[in-house]
Amino acid sequence: MTTLRLALVQLAVTDDKAINISRAISFVKQAKQRDADVVALPECFNSPYGTAAAKTNEIYVIGGSIPERDGEQLFNTCTVWDSKGTFIGKYRKMHLFDVDVEGKISFKESDTITAGNELFTFRVKGWKIGLGICHDIRFEELARLYRNLGNPIHNESTLPHTLPYTHSFSAVHPSTGCQLMFYPGAFESTVTGPLHWSLLQRARANDAQLYVAGVSSAKVDGFGYESYGHTQLTDPWGRVLKELEFAEDMIVADIDMTVVDEVRTQIPIFGQRREDLYETAWMKN
Amino acid sequence: MTTLRLALVQLAVTDDKAINISRAISFVKQAKQRDADVVALPECFNSPYGTAAAKTNEIYVIGGSIPERDGEQLFNTCTVWDSKGTFIGKYRKMHLFDVDVEGKISFKESDTITAGNELFTFRVKGWKIGLGICHDIRFEELARLYRNLGNPIHNESTLPHTLPYTHSFSAVHPSTGCQLMFYPGAFESTVTGPLHWSLLQRARANDAQLYVAGVSSAKVDGFGYESYGHTQLTDPWGRVLKELEFAEDMIVADIDMTVVDEVRTQIPIFGQRREDLYETAWMKN
Repeated sequence: MTTLRLALVQLAVTDDKAINISRAISFVKQAKQRDADVVALPECFNSPYGTAAAKTNEIYVIGGSIPERDGEQLFNTCTVWDSKGTFIGKYRKMHLFDVDVEGKISFKESDTITAGNELFTFRVKGWKIGLGICHDIRFEELARLYRNLGNPIHNESTLPHTLPYTHSFSAVHPSTGCQLMFYPGAFESTVTGPLHWSLLQRARANDAQLYVAGVSSAKVDGFGYESYGHTQLTDPWGRVLKELEFAEDMIVADIDMTVVDEVRTQIPIFGQRREDLYETAWMKN
Repeated sequence: MTTLRLALVQLAVTDDKAINISRAISFVKQAKQRDADVVALPECFNSPYGTAAAKTNEIYVIGGSIPERDGEQLFNTCTVWDSKGTFIGKYRKMHLFDVDVEGKISFKESDTITAGNELFTFRVKGWKIGLGICHDIRFEELARLYRNLGNPIHNESTLPHTLPYTHSFSAVHPSTGCQLMFYPGAFESTVTGPLHWSLLQRARANDAQLYVAGVSSAKVDGFGYESYGHTQLTDPWGRVLKELEFAEDMIVADIDMTVVDEVRTQIPIFGQRREDLYETAWMKN
């Protein structure tokens, strides 16, 4: 099975948690009706509802992100649930959003949130899928570390990320490493959204030669922080397959693993890296 | 002095070396008449003429690239000449162009060319400038290594690249590391040019937060390999400032170092990297 049907929900997130949940569940149902294998929600969806939505609809749910309390610490965390409603695991945002664009946008996520320290992958129908959250997309190392998982020189067993399933790879094959990354996000609507959201997705897709799904919340007026929307699906050639505008909406689209193999074989940059000269290494023990 | 005037020459390169030289010198003269500080020529310009053009016109010349013989080996080499006509140094292409896009484009540079192993930087009016050639632009590590030069954690003195001038840095400042990269190039006109040439320049500029000048040869029919043209100048926000189409032409434009400081201060991703978790290290001793 090389085709995967994705549903990317550009949810209008408000401060009414009950409405957020109700609308999210409605989209998950629609995704199932359209035979999606995986449905993804945006960053800061703000309600840990995953299990019921996944189990009832028999669909993998990537639960955008929620604030996760762990003792005294808060994390910006994306949870993943399989089609039986089982919690598979979670990714905690690794790079916090501290920016200060003079006179336009200022935000300091690190005032309240603690950064995560682990990669997280899971598998659906043979696809190996990695997660990042929003600002993480600016760091090309993260996508490349996910891309390199399973290559002999980046032995998966030496990496401390959470792996819900057992993997083994015995040779370099174009399909080793993640073939798809989800980035639940919420870039802001005035500066960094228009300048960088689409560019970063295309850059990560093309550099790491994998599909990138950037799942944003919709632009909603009157809640302070205005999200840029523009949920986007990009293929491993860096081509934008689908994109939304500002309003609440959903992308449903198929992706094809043969396209991943095609670009990795035809433009073999991962075999051409000068690892005698430089290497992006995972430092954590 | 924070402003630098660049001239990027999209030369029509043919198999007549005398005409290539004559046209190149004519563009260098025009660049000087328009008060450019630096003039850059495209990849495979194919004639090591730099000294006279630089000295006569009192302008820095980035001599695109030429085949350089060193004993039994050939390199794809970019030479740099200062405004007195003095040879400053050279960069040898580090990543060779071996691609095979089925039924469309197949090329194996490594059949004839040996890869270089050194970074190369030089300074003009306080700007620190790095060089890559064409296919090198696909490897984000290269731009980041140039960007990191001078940061305390990437101590310049430990790197084996060729440095024509003495540098010293005592603190992390947004302006440390290269502020400008030149990529003489010649992406091909049918597949990888349209898909990737502009995207890669914007990705490198935005990820490494520096200006990127991609200097291509013009599209010329009837010489086998058709170059995509589309010489482009991109700012550190990833915005395209100027771009050409297919034909022979020249960009002359000013770049401003305060824009480099601005983006590096406002979106401080180089301070936010998780170097406790990963690092792109220079491996060569």
